[in-house]
Amino acid sequence: MSERDGGAGGHDDRERVAGNGLLDRRLFLKAGGLSGALLLAGRAGAGDEPTLLELARPAWMRTPGRTFSNYGQPAAHERGVIRWISANAGIDSNGVSWCPLHDLEGTIVPNGLHFERHHNGVPAIDPARHRLLIHGLVARPLWFTMEDLARYPMVSRTCFVECGGNSNAGWRQRPIQTAAGYFHGLVSCSEWTGVPLALLLDEAGLTRDAQWLIAEGADAFAMDVSIPVEKAREDAILALYQNGERVRPENGYPLRLIVPGWEGVLNVKWLRRLEASAEPVMARNETSRYTELLPSGKARMFTFVMDAKSLITSPSAGMQMRGPGLYEVKGLAWSGHGRIRAVDVSADGGRTWAPAALQEPVLPACFTRFRIPWHWDGSAAVLKSRATDQTGNVQPERDALVAERGRHGYFHYNAIVAWQVGADGRIHHVYA
Amino acid sequence: MSERDGGAGGHDDRERVAGNGLLDRRLFLKAGGLSGALLLAGRAGAGDEPTLLELARPAWMRTPGRTFSNYGQPAAHERGVIRWISANAGIDSNGVSWCPLHDLEGTIVPNGLHFERHHNGVPAIDPARHRLLIHGLVARPLWFTMEDLARYPMVSRTCFVECGGNSNAGWRQRPIQTAAGYFHGLVSCSEWTGVPLALLLDEAGLTRDAQWLIAEGADAFAMDVSIPVEKAREDAILALYQNGERVRPENGYPLRLIVPGWEGVLNVKWLRRLEASAEPVMARNETSRYTELLPSGKARMFTFVMDAKSLITSPSAGMQMRGPGLYEVKGLAWSGHGRIRAVDVSADGGRTWAPAALQEPVLPACFTRFRIPWHWDGSAAVLKSRATDQTGNVQPERDALVAERGRHGYFHYNAIVAWQVGADGRIHHVYA
Repeated sequence: MSERDGGAGGHDDRERVAGNGLLDRRLFLKAGGLSGALLLAGRAGAGDEPTLLELARPAWMRTPGRTFSNYGQPAAHERGVIRWISANAGIDSNGVSWCPLHDLEGTIVPNGLHFERHHNGVPAIDPARHRLLIHGLVARPLWFTMEDLARYPMVSRTCFVECGGNSNAGWRQRPIQTAAGYFHGLVSCSEWTGVPLALLLDEAGLTRDAQWLIAEGADAFAMDVSIPVEKAREDAILALYQNGERVRPENGYPLRLIVPGWEGVLNVKWLRRLEASAEPVMARNETSRYTELLPSGKARMFTFVMDAKSLITSPSAGMQMRGPGLYEVKGLAWSGHGRIRAVDVSADGGRTWAPAALQEPVLPACFTRFRIPWHWDGSAAVLKSRATDQTGNVQPERDALVAERGRHGYFHYNAIVAWQVGADGRIHHVYA
Repeated sequence: MSERDGGAGGHDDRERVAGNGLLDRRLFLKAGGLSGALLLAGRAGAGDEPTLLELARPAWMRTPGRTFSNYGQPAAHERGVIRWISANAGIDSNGVSWCPLHDLEGTIVPNGLHFERHHNGVPAIDPARHRLLIHGLVARPLWFTMEDLARYPMVSRTCFVECGGNSNAGWRQRPIQTAAGYFHGLVSCSEWTGVPLALLLDEAGLTRDAQWLIAEGADAFAMDVSIPVEKAREDAILALYQNGERVRPENGYPLRLIVPGWEGVLNVKWLRRLEASAEPVMARNETSRYTELLPSGKARMFTFVMDAKSLITSPSAGMQMRGPGLYEVKGLAWSGHGRIRAVDVSADGGRTWAPAALQEPVLPACFTRFRIPWHWDGSAAVLKSRATDQTGNVQPERDALVAERGRHGYFHYNAIVAWQVGADGRIHHVYA
């Protein structure tokens, strides 16, 4: 181990909580416990000192900087932090773009990087001409301008939206080699603010037969899906705002339906119509898609809730370790069933596990950041994370998921992800 | 009252909790209690129906929409939602830009709209060449590349940053007439993620005499301030990320010091140096600025903690009521002393008050959104909000604040804000 990595070599004092170097999640919280023992990456001593030129005022301190801006943008040096676009060749603006989860930290995804799923592109809607209609099995059909809706009482809810098809490369026979976000990044987390749908349903007065709402978007595809009235009343939101500002065009401007914890396709963008109905509409996106053939020959459909899931974002595929020593293994966990109760991490491919620290506040149907210190000894290792939610739902190993769902799986892939750290410090995706 | 506003006129059933029409904060949470009684703005009945053309597919549903983007931007129709720039004529890029709090909802401020305070512009820093130096009264002077820091354990903290000079137009003899955010918007709230400063101080090993840290930024002004070591150890963060992505240039790229709940000037941007010292540096920004002469002739300095404060963002100055009827009065509250315990709202200029609902989760030193329903009867009214934090700190009336601080006040203005709603529905800022 180099001096830079471990300094005074206090490793024996640090409690190992699982195989292959996982350390107690509270290690960094023990006040004073680290003093002098943990030179992680900070550099001391003669040979490593920065040059006088580096410590003297660099170029950017010698001239006045750029002036103010009305609306800021990311740094030029961060131009590589982007949504990765996978569009279908055959249909205009049909496809997805992936959120770069491996480049992000914390739990909020900035609006510019929230994943996209479009069926026929992003409509350029004039908010002054957009309407929301509530009709069907109601006592009073109603319609709303966006200005009408803005006057209603609102609520905020920080929650994830995840495409039912997220991570579906996991069904492939061989592990896909791509960055974590470009494999699992059809999920993002925002603070959504808008009008509780229950309020408007009360105003319209649903009839006794109204068991479903058919939601339709104002895009060229006229995306429609069916949502049980019970869930719509429970916590659905007509969102006008995302992370403080108006929802952006690719996320549904001027109005998006948010159905916390449920399949992304239900969170209809550019929402124009809610029709109360006795039956689901049996639209393309709930029959031919988002429905799967099981080994038994039966079809699995209306699988609304997104199951417990987690992902180590760092270290992760495509990254390079900087040499043996102490690292923080960190990632995201989420579940549509409620709060994350625990995330366990393994550094020996799942033989032994240790609980990671969860960043507070832990909110229902929301990204939860987990962290655990790891002393990597420089030899090959396999990292895994496993989420458990408040209902006791545990993220399955891949073999178990494939056995349950069979080889026709496409949606709702939530298996444990394994990253192999090589002795050369390179990281690959493996099925292990 | 028009039919559109009140419908079946169930107002007598709604509990009035304070003068001039304030209603119970739980009104909208009573399931089913509104059924048919509250047509707020939704439109029913023949005369108001949208035309066939409006309900048929509008233009944007008839052609494929725009394609995917690597990094999204706000809608073209929201171009008016901007930071308002107030730059000093005499010095290059010296001044502020104001966050448009009146246009926002929820508690997160998107990065593009976070307020700015620059002394000499935004430096264009190459992150590969930027260094953080920790030196002075330490056992081991250390320096770090940004890559070094990224390997350290991190924490996230959602908190506000507020300029000590925010709202200082409140000291003027006459009430300024401008939008709420362009008066009180030198404050913003983000999820900051980075390395706990305590970890690095432990590594460097502060000597017994080290009571202060002198923090310096890498801008042309070389902004420096002094921070007590005790606070630095308690919860300061070396932030690399803001709302998930790397901190943006105008917010300190690649590294910002976050000192939760304390004066904005301490949250040094473009952080390059932390010098442990026995005494404060007595820099320009802690002596001639951010220090005030009191009526007693004594100076008030090192007033680090931002006091309890609140602001009604809607309805607010410059907005126009849409006619008598039900409204949601909403705004933001925050305190550097910890959590917001209560926000009271008055619709009669402070004679009677009612508690607003607070959006969960309520976090320390963080924006807290408050809401209360209000039936405006169409006559003149004065709206106020008053925050109380967990330490019992209560936001003062303006008269009391001016009496305490005198006419030389400039910083730390946190008085109650009054908006006058005219019988014509127009809203003005008043001292009342």
